Amino acid sequence: MPSAVIPSRTPPPPPQEFSGLFERVGPHMAALDRFMQNEVEQFEPEIRRMAAYCLDTTGKRLRPTLVFVSGWQGEGMVPDDLVRAAAVVEMVHLATLVHDDIMDRAEIRRSRRTAAREFGPDAAVLLGDALFSQALHIAARFPTTEVCRVVSESTRRVCSGEIMQTLRRRDLNITLAEYRRMIDLKTAELFRVSCFLGARLSGHDLAFATAADRFGHHLGIAYQMYDDLVDFVGEEQRIGKTLGTDLATGKLTLPLMLLLEQVSEGERAAIIAAMRGGQPLGLAASRQRMQELGIATGVVRAIEAELAVAAAALGPFAQLTPVPLMRQLGGMLRAQVAALAVTPVSP
Amino acid sequence: MPSAVIPSRTPPPPPQEFSGLFERVGPHMAALDRFMQNEVEQFEPEIRRMAAYCLDTTGKRLRPTLVFVSGWQGEGMVPDDLVRAAAVVEMVHLATLVHDDIMDRAEIRRSRRTAAREFGPDAAVLLGDALFSQALHIAARFPTTEVCRVVSESTRRVCSGEIMQTLRRRDLNITLAEYRRMIDLKTAELFRVSCFLGARLSGHDLAFATAADRFGHHLGIAYQMYDDLVDFVGEEQRIGKTLGTDLATGKLTLPLMLLLEQVSEGERAAIIAAMRGGQPLGLAASRQRMQELGIATGVVRAIEAELAVAAAALGPFAQLTPVPLMRQLGGMLRAQVAALAVTPVSP
Repeated sequence: MPSAVIPSRTPPPPPQEFSGLFERVGPHMAALDRFMQNEVEQFEPEIRRMAAYCLDTTGKRLRPTLVFVSGWQGEGMVPDDLVRAAAVVEMVHLATLVHDDIMDRAEIRRSRRTAAREFGPDAAVLLGDALFSQALHIAARFPTTEVCRVVSESTRRVCSGEIMQTLRRRDLNITLAEYRRMIDLKTAELFRVSCFLGARLSGHDLAFATAADRFGHHLGIAYQMYDDLVDFVGEEQRIGKTLGTDLATGKLTLPLMLLLEQVSEGERAAIIAAMRGGQPLGLAASRQRMQELGIATGVVRAIEAELAVAAAALGPFAQLTPVPLMRQLGGMLRAQVAALAVTPVSP
Repeated sequence: MPSAVIPSRTPPPPPQEFSGLFERVGPHMAALDRFMQNEVEQFEPEIRRMAAYCLDTTGKRLRPTLVFVSGWQGEGMVPDDLVRAAAVVEMVHLATLVHDDIMDRAEIRRSRRTAAREFGPDAAVLLGDALFSQALHIAARFPTTEVCRVVSESTRRVCSGEIMQTLRRRDLNITLAEYRRMIDLKTAELFRVSCFLGARLSGHDLAFATAADRFGHHLGIAYQMYDDLVDFVGEEQRIGKTLGTDLATGKLTLPLMLLLEQVSEGERAAIIAAMRGGQPLGLAASRQRMQELGIATGVVRAIEAELAVAAAALGPFAQLTPVPLMRQLGGMLRAQVAALAVTPVSP
C-alpha cells in the first residue's frame, strides 16, 4: 500500500499572507463569469450547449488571474479591457485543453468528463476549433489589431509546443534543453502573454509590459515544472484529473528525467517498459522511488531558479501598483511547491 | 462492371469562354505562392516541414480565386491586400481540411497522403490548430480589426457546421433544411467571406461588398451540392481524394437524400445497411442506380436555382470591374455540373 509509505498529500491551506489575493480578484472573476456566459450566446444555437460545457469550468483560471494582477489598478477596479483580455486567454487555454484531452485519451478533467469523452473525439476536435475562433473574435473587439496579433502568434506557439511533445512521445532521448523548449512554448507562452496584455491594457509603458512578459514567462516555466511534479506525487481526487497520465502517455518530464538518471539499470528498464507500454501500472512504485531518491527536491530547485528570474524582472518596477500582487503570485507558487514536494503535512 | 454501364466521366475541357479566367488570375496565384512560402518561415523551426506539407498543395484554390475575382481591379494588377486576404481564407480552409481528414479517416487527398496519415491524427489536430492561428495572425496584419473579426467569426461558423455534420452521421432523419443549414455553414460561409473581403479590400462600398457576399454565399451552396454529387459519380483518380467517403462516413447529402426518396424499400434497406456499416461496398451499385433514377438531374436543378440567386445579386452592379469575372465563375460551375451529371462526354 503506497499510502502507508508516502504521506498524505493534502495541501496545507495557503499561508496567511496570500489568502487575500483570490478575494481581491473576486470581482474580476465574477465579471469574467458574466462575460463568458454572455459569450456562449454567440455560438450557433446547435452547438451552444457544447460550448457552454467547455466554458463552464471550475478551473483555476490562472491566466485570467495573471491578466488581472498584471493590470491591477486598485481595489474593486474591474476594467472592461482586462475582463475581455482574460476571456481571450482563458478561452484559448480551454480550447487547448479540449484538444489535449483527445491526445491523452483523458476521460476526466476537473472532476468531470472531458469534452472528448462527453461528445466524442471527432466533435471535440471541431469544438476546440470553434473555441479558438471565438477567442480570436473577442480579441478582434479591441480598437487595434495588437491583441489579435499577440494572441494568434501565441496560440500558434502553444500548438507548436504541443506538436513537439506529441511527436516525441515515448522518446527517451529528450534533452533538458528540449524539455525546456517544449514547456516554454506549450505553457509559458500563454502565461507570458497574459501578463503582457494585463500590463499593456492598463496603460503601462512598454518597459513594464516587457518586464511583466518576462515575469510571466518564467512563472509559466516554474508552473509547468510544478504541474509535472504533481503528476507524480499528487492525488487524483484532489487535482480532479487522471493522474500519472504523463508517464502513461509517454511524456518525458523533468521529474522522470531526474529519476531515470539516478536509478539502477534494472529499475530504468522497468520504468521504460511501463512508459512504452502506455500503462499507469507501476506508477505508485515509481512515485515511492521518487520520494526516496529526492527527485522532488531536484525539481523544486529548478522551480526556485525560475521564480528568482521572474522576481528579478520586476525589480526596477517596485513602485508600480501591480508589482506587489505579482510578487505574491510567485510566492504562492513557491509555497505550494514546497508543501507538495518536500514538507508533507499530516491531514 | 459498372464502367460498362456508366459512361466515362472524364470532364470536357472548359468551354472556350472560360479558358481565360485562370490565366488572368495567374499572376495573383504566383504572388499567393510566394506569400505562402514565406509564411512557412514564420512557423517554429521544429514544425516548419509539417506546415510546408500542409500549405504546399495542388489544390484548386477556389477561395483565393473568389478573393481575386471579387476584388478584380484590372489585368495584371495584384494588390498586396488581396494576396494577404487570399492567404488568410486559404489557410483557414487548409486547416479545416487537415481536421476533416482526421474525422473522415481519409488517407488520400489531392493524390497524396493526408496530414493525418503522414504525421498521425494527434499531431494533425495540433497542426490544424497552428494553421488556424497563423491564418488569424496574417489577418491581424491589416490596419484595422475588420478582417480578423470577419474571419474569426466565419471560422467559428465553419466549425459549427462541421460539428453538426459530425454529430448527425448515420442519421437518416436529416431534413433538406438541415442539410442546407450544414452546407451553408461548412462551405458557403468561407465562399461568402472570400467574396466580401475581395470587394471590400478593393475599396468598393458596402452595397457591392454585400452583393458580393450574397453571390459568394449562393455560389458556395451550389459548389457544395456539386461536390456531394462528385462523391457519387466522380472518379477517384481524377478527383484525387478517396471517393464515396460521404456514404462510407455516413454523411447524408443531397444526392443520397434524393436517392433514398425514390428507391424501393428493399434497396433503401441495403443502402442504409452499407451506410451504417461504414463501408464503401455497394457504392458502384448505388452510383448506377443514381444514374438510372436521374438523381443527378434533381441535384443539378437545385444547383441551378442557387446559381440563379447568386447571379441576381450582381444584377445592379453590372458596370463594376469585378462583375463580368464573377459571372464567369458562376458559368464555369454550371458547365462543370452539367458535364458531370447529365451530359456525359466521350473521351
